[in-house]
Amino acid sequence: MAHPSQHERLGVVLVNTRNPLNLGAAARAMSNFGFFDLRVVNPYEASFREARSAVGASEVLAKAREYESVAAAVADCVLVVGTTSAARRELQHPLYRLDQGAKLIRKQLGTARVALLFGSEKRGLSNEDLSHCHWLLRIPTREGHGSMNLGQAVAVCLYELARSRAEASSVRRSKKSEREAATAARSADLERITATLLDALRASGYLDSKPSAAANEKIRRMVRRLKLSAEDSELLLGMLRQMVWKMESRANSK
Amino acid sequence: MAHPSQHERLGVVLVNTRNPLNLGAAARAMSNFGFFDLRVVNPYEASFREARSAVGASEVLAKAREYESVAAAVADCVLVVGTTSAARRELQHPLYRLDQGAKLIRKQLGTARVALLFGSEKRGLSNEDLSHCHWLLRIPTREGHGSMNLGQAVAVCLYELARSRAEASSVRRSKKSEREAATAARSADLERITATLLDALRASGYLDSKPSAAANEKIRRMVRRLKLSAEDSELLLGMLRQMVWKMESRANSK
Repeated sequence: MAHPSQHERLGVVLVNTRNPLNLGAAARAMSNFGFFDLRVVNPYEASFREARSAVGASEVLAKAREYESVAAAVADCVLVVGTTSAARRELQHPLYRLDQGAKLIRKQLGTARVALLFGSEKRGLSNEDLSHCHWLLRIPTREGHGSMNLGQAVAVCLYELARSRAEASSVRRSKKSEREAATAARSADLERITATLLDALRASGYLDSKPSAAANEKIRRMVRRLKLSAEDSELLLGMLRQMVWKMESRANSK
Repeated sequence: MAHPSQHERLGVVLVNTRNPLNLGAAARAMSNFGFFDLRVVNPYEASFREARSAVGASEVLAKAREYESVAAAVADCVLVVGTTSAARRELQHPLYRLDQGAKLIRKQLGTARVALLFGSEKRGLSNEDLSHCHWLLRIPTREGHGSMNLGQAVAVCLYELARSRAEASSVRRSKKSEREAATAARSADLERITATLLDALRASGYLDSKPSAAANEKIRRMVRRLKLSAEDSELLLGMLRQMVWKMESRANSK
């Protein structure tokens, strides 16, 4: 990760979480995307203990801090952002779509701490919780089914935060290194394949022993449409040669 | 959703899923982001039944189709994309980061069906599973902890597909007329070519009469790399069949 300090400045705040599996899932997604500051407000005690002691519970969960109120959990942050589903109508806050909001958060993380709040599985964030927020962020789910699973919502938000940051820093690099496109076959290779394929088609009886110019061109065009890499053209040539050899040696041995 | 038809063309394929909670979570994320075609390959039976009968099981899960093989599950798709964690090093396929891959998928969804494959919780996709794929997509998780929870990985991928589609639907329209590309071959066609090519390679002696799984997978991957159109796949299939017939009829007549 290029800027660990930025990632360290984001606190993920889970408010009134009930299901230990969701606590575990949120912690895992944080670890996946390189965020480590988990803060838990008023969790259902048994759940929190269970999640922490689960096999494979992450370091993130082990280090999570517990708070009695949202106010205490976000005290050291300069920006507090609440998450919400599209369904809520009575919002009193500015509302940004996730990709827009992520850019604003990222900008802030350059210099200061930001808290990202997620409410309980059933009710989301209460009006009191929301009152601690500067603005709200929504994941663009469809209207008919807006409410996401908590662990999935955390994963999607952190993905977007990591994505939009990476995008800004390394647009140039990613294009080259990640695809490292295979070298395309040269025309000479393609022509060799064309000739060998024509041999094979004649030997098999697919084409006449003296195919028309039009038939030859049809095969040549088809070979060009395959978009072969240099490596695959070698492979294919070897296969075709073996088939030609087989068909011709049988013919001669009769 | 502005273009429901595009969303309808994406099949989410879960291979060897073991945990009913993950099946449920994947289905929920699909519903959240407006995707409804869930395909399940060889699920652990008790899990699948449990997930389907769970309280609140979604319509997506109720309508999920079950398949015995990856080949059957992706037969009607022209593009098959596998998901993988960053940790895998031995990849034989082109690898795109999620945001880049999502753009390619979206382009294809404009006209044809696409399958997005997710492997089992423990092992991910097998080499055999991967050999059905045209290319792979990875979620940019951090190196130290690349492996995501299945339900969260599905959510993040579908979020990105929905996001990037909304972003670029206007760009696509302007480019459409000039490419209006030939219809790509469906996976069922590619699988037929793979099988016939394998016959030809065995008949010619290029491969053993009982080739290893690795050899089969290598051939399957090569066929996927050819980027065959539906029309060319017919043409090639006819050629190969003729060669197989020739080689086998000679063998029998001796």
